[in-house]
Amino acid sequence: MADRKPVFLVIGAGAGIGGHAAKRFAAGGYHAVLARRSDEKGLQRLVGQIEDAGGSASGLLLNASEDGAIEDLVAQVEQDIGPIESALYNLGAQIGNRKLHDTPHRTFELGWRLGCYGVFRLAHAMFPAMVERANNGRNGSLLVTSATSAVRGNAGQHSHAAAMGGRRMLCQTLNAEFGPQGIHVAHIVVDGAVDAPDTLGKLLGDKFEAFKQSKGEEGVIDPAALAETYWHLAQQPKNCWTHEVDARPWTDVAWWNDNPNSAIDTQAKR
Amino acid sequence: MADRKPVFLVIGAGAGIGGHAAKRFAAGGYHAVLARRSDEKGLQRLVGQIEDAGGSASGLLLNASEDGAIEDLVAQVEQDIGPIESALYNLGAQIGNRKLHDTPHRTFELGWRLGCYGVFRLAHAMFPAMVERANNGRNGSLLVTSATSAVRGNAGQHSHAAAMGGRRMLCQTLNAEFGPQGIHVAHIVVDGAVDAPDTLGKLLGDKFEAFKQSKGEEGVIDPAALAETYWHLAQQPKNCWTHEVDARPWTDVAWWNDNPNSAIDTQAKR
Amino acid sequence: MADRKPVFLVIGAGAGIGGHAAKRFAAGGYHAVLARRSDEKGLQRLVGQIEDAGGSASGLLLNASEDGAIEDLVAQVEQDIGPIESALYNLGAQIGNRKLHDTPHRTFELGWRLGCYGVFRLAHAMFPAMVERANNGRNGSLLVTSATSAVRGNAGQHSHAAAMGGRRMLCQTLNAEFGPQGIHVAHIVVDGAVDAPDTLGKLLGDKFEAFKQSKGEEGVIDPAALAETYWHLAQQPKNCWTHEVDARPWTDVAWWNDNPNSAIDTQAKR
Amino acid sequence: MADRKPVFLVIGAGAGIGGHAAKRFAAGGYHAVLARRSDEKGLQRLVGQIEDAGGSASGLLLNASEDGAIEDLVAQVEQDIGPIESALYNLGAQIGNRKLHDTPHRTFELGWRLGCYGVFRLAHAMFPAMVERANNGRNGSLLVTSATSAVRGNAGQHSHAAAMGGRRMLCQTLNAEFGPQGIHVAHIVVDGAVDAPDTLGKLLGDKFEAFKQSKGEEGVIDPAALAETYWHLAQQPKNCWTHEVDARPWTDVAWWNDNPNSAIDTQAKR
Repeated sequence: MADRKPVFLVIGAGAGIGGHAAKRFAAGGYHAVLARRSDEKGLQRLVGQIEDAGGSASGLLLNASEDGAIEDLVAQVEQDIGPIESALYNLGAQIGNRKLHDTPHRTFELGWRLGCYGVFRLAHAMFPAMVERANNGRNGSLLVTSATSAVRGNAGQHSHAAAMGGRRMLCQTLNAEFGPQGIHVAHIVVDGAVDAPDTLGKLLGDKFEAFKQSKGEEGVIDPAALAETYWHLAQQPKNCWTHEVDARPWTDVAWWNDNPNSAIDTQAKR
Repeated sequence: MADRKPVFLVIGAGAGIGGHAAKRFAAGGYHAVLARRSDEKGLQRLVGQIEDAGGSASGLLLNASEDGAIEDLVAQVEQDIGPIESALYNLGAQIGNRKLHDTPHRTFELGWRLGCYGVFRLAHAMFPAMVERANNGRNGSLLVTSATSAVRGNAGQHSHAAAMGGRRMLCQTLNAEFGPQGIHVAHIVVDGAVDAPDTLGKLLGDKFEAFKQSKGEEGVIDPAALAETYWHLAQQPKNCWTHEVDARPWTDVAWWNDNPNSAIDTQAKR
Repeated sequence: MADRKPVFLVIGAGAGIGGHAAKRFAAGGYHAVLARRSDEKGLQRLVGQIEDAGGSASGLLLNASEDGAIEDLVAQVEQDIGPIESALYNLGAQIGNRKLHDTPHRTFELGWRLGCYGVFRLAHAMFPAMVERANNGRNGSLLVTSATSAVRGNAGQHSHAAAMGGRRMLCQTLNAEFGPQGIHVAHIVVDGAVDAPDTLGKLLGDKFEAFKQSKGEEGVIDPAALAETYWHLAQQPKNCWTHEVDARPWTDVAWWNDNPNSAIDTQAKR
Repeated sequence: MADRKPVFLVIGAGAGIGGHAAKRFAAGGYHAVLARRSDEKGLQRLVGQIEDAGGSASGLLLNASEDGAIEDLVAQVEQDIGPIESALYNLGAQIGNRKLHDTPHRTFELGWRLGCYGVFRLAHAMFPAMVERANNGRNGSLLVTSATSAVRGNAGQHSHAAAMGGRRMLCQTLNAEFGPQGIHVAHIVVDGAVDAPDTLGKLLGDKFEAFKQSKGEEGVIDPAALAETYWHLAQQPKNCWTHEVDARPWTDVAWWNDNPNSAIDTQAKR
């Protein structure tokens, strides 16, 4: 066992939200386990940064969409590293806006595998031991990064929205069954662009820097700031648990609002 | 008593939704009572149109924001015209987009008086007799026209959104108490521009025609079409009641969606 | 080609909502195509009832969860019977309340296949021809029966809620892309028990009659009444389309409300 | 000027959420101004507790429903104490469950005055100076305590739900206009009973202790725990602002869920 610290497991530990959450929890006394699909080098860089800051971390590669992968990960962490006290599910399959007929069936299914089924599989594999420990007074939590697509389906988001909408309802059913057993499930609606090189950065490619510039000062979510909210959620005492929270930059229009600069058209619909 | 028909009472009976609902219910066998604040001539035109079509109707002027006005109206209709079987509350105080500091306290209060308090007052005055008749097997319903502002608050809509948000919750509390007593309360979220000369027409002034042109074929809600939905709601049997429904033209973006033509900015927030 | 009537295709045509919707649309001039997984006899009974009433109908068996089944059905109907003008997706995999660890991975996946993926597959297969016909002035609509689980996830509903939550978001993305192309997508939140012998009846077994008795007069949704709402939605003109509607019996507590008889506990949470 | 600390103004500073938020912000370096309607002694006790802990605080009595009261308070604090950097609106008029006909018109209006209009008045009075300071790089935030009634209207909650539903929409319109000007508006949905002697305690009277016992260990929200969430919200950097968050004890059923112990009735509605 690496150390006696409680484990914070991140599935989807890129250089954005996942990596920063790992750093925050490591700074708070957890041993962070960072799991991601690829880029061993980037993974070791994150582990190294955590260790350089005096924290404790391990890195693992896995393909979460493969049968057994999440289950094996949980078993391996529990056996070789330590008891998982908190986990962050940070995967999704955002592929940009695509028309229905540019969204093949396999793409839609993969969206579900990563966006919804993976949360089910993680809970299935991880909750039994977590509940047992909660019965003995330990904390247990599952944080789930989510997106605007979990609460409304935009044009072009068939795969992502169907996956995220299912994920949100699943978080509610998990919360309803496991909250009273001592496990805190929190669903975080990230309603703004995140400064995440491994996801949004790759999606936008060489437009990423220009995009961030265009958003102005503090116009893109700093994943380190968001990680503070994740940390806060995981530290809430049992008498005061948040199930859902949203976040966006100050200059962004919330998902439910129209752009205030829009024309008479919007003003007529109130 | 004007006739033995059940009464359909419309508060806010302009040439748009209110007037067309009155026509639809009159065509379906109700005696329509049309109440509005001003324009006796326009009111009599509507009554005349209903009568010309073989229906039965009366017109009344009232200032709904005055104390006692709604209460007196209900008493007068019940005594002089007939039992109110269905009512439509169709008032609001949409004043266009105004910044907070261009929204005086009196304006905000008037928004509440017309947008929220009036529904409370109507229910208070009308429900006792309606419940009594429902106990004897008669139908009873209250339809409430509502707006996108009831479900999300846009910039500039301080007064309207606060009023409509309260109205929506009030419809839910009324439904929760009076549904099991046989009164059907339905809240209609009109999420698009309506071809209503007395409200949107006055708000847009001489831009109204250009606005409608810009929306294209079937691009603005025809109040006669919407009145069919109102009629459908009021005719649902007790085993199958709708509490909330939305409506918009086919070319409109639903309130929860971004404009699909928006830039990379929106695409990054999913 | 069976006749020149437009086709109303029902996937999930049991003796409840699906069968009654087929009857209603057949009465309104459509040729109803009833597709269901099993019970050839029950299927032919429904077809016979429609024909006896002067309507036109066909019946087909299919296993919608099999690859290609929905796609083949659409192709076959379009080729052999006629152009699909309206379709109802009426399948789901409600299995009653089950704890997470009584919900196997296969069950969760099947829930998604029937509850969410099937809607995607139907839209994929059916919309291209429908859009083409809409461009030529024909109507096109997809009605999707949904459930309370689409808007909140109760304990024990892991599979159903994840599927229905995804289904709801998918209906929004379909509506956002295809509404402006002339196809009306409507999502119906059935928030009450339906008098449906083939689904709820089977789920409750010999408790079904006692359950209905306990609900009192008009205490269970009559699928014929609900079918009127489906018919209304499909007949809305383009300028006034409803995307979402709910329905429940008058004596039911809406999903967002607490039982009014609950104890002080609930009263303290307001 | 009392000191050079930024001011945290609490309107509705009883011994529950308001008082504990004041303590938390005072511990974090703010000068807390506690305003409440009555109980000078209780008010001074809170101020004393803050000072004993090394913090800085003032206490004021006001009747927030009186015209000018909130406006005068803001002016007085800004002039005599210091610049308001953060404010908490913590008033409401929860009166327990009352049928519509036990809810007089004055009660309904008072509910709106305290629950909705007061937020408008506070924003009107406070935001101009706050925006000016935000332009110069200072923080500005308005936290609004809210309730389950802001998102669904239960039977008996006519006054409270109408007020809270309006409050929630108003928070959205304020956020939409003032977020991009640097003022963070956050709406906190308190979806559980709070250990608040001055509000729930008074509502339940001598049943309060038994109620808390019945809820079990950590079964009632500790206002000190909730105050940590308020503090977290007010400290979020501009790139990562939460607009809405919920909270409840682990053993409570979230507002959107049915009680899992409910009968077959609920199971049939999924």
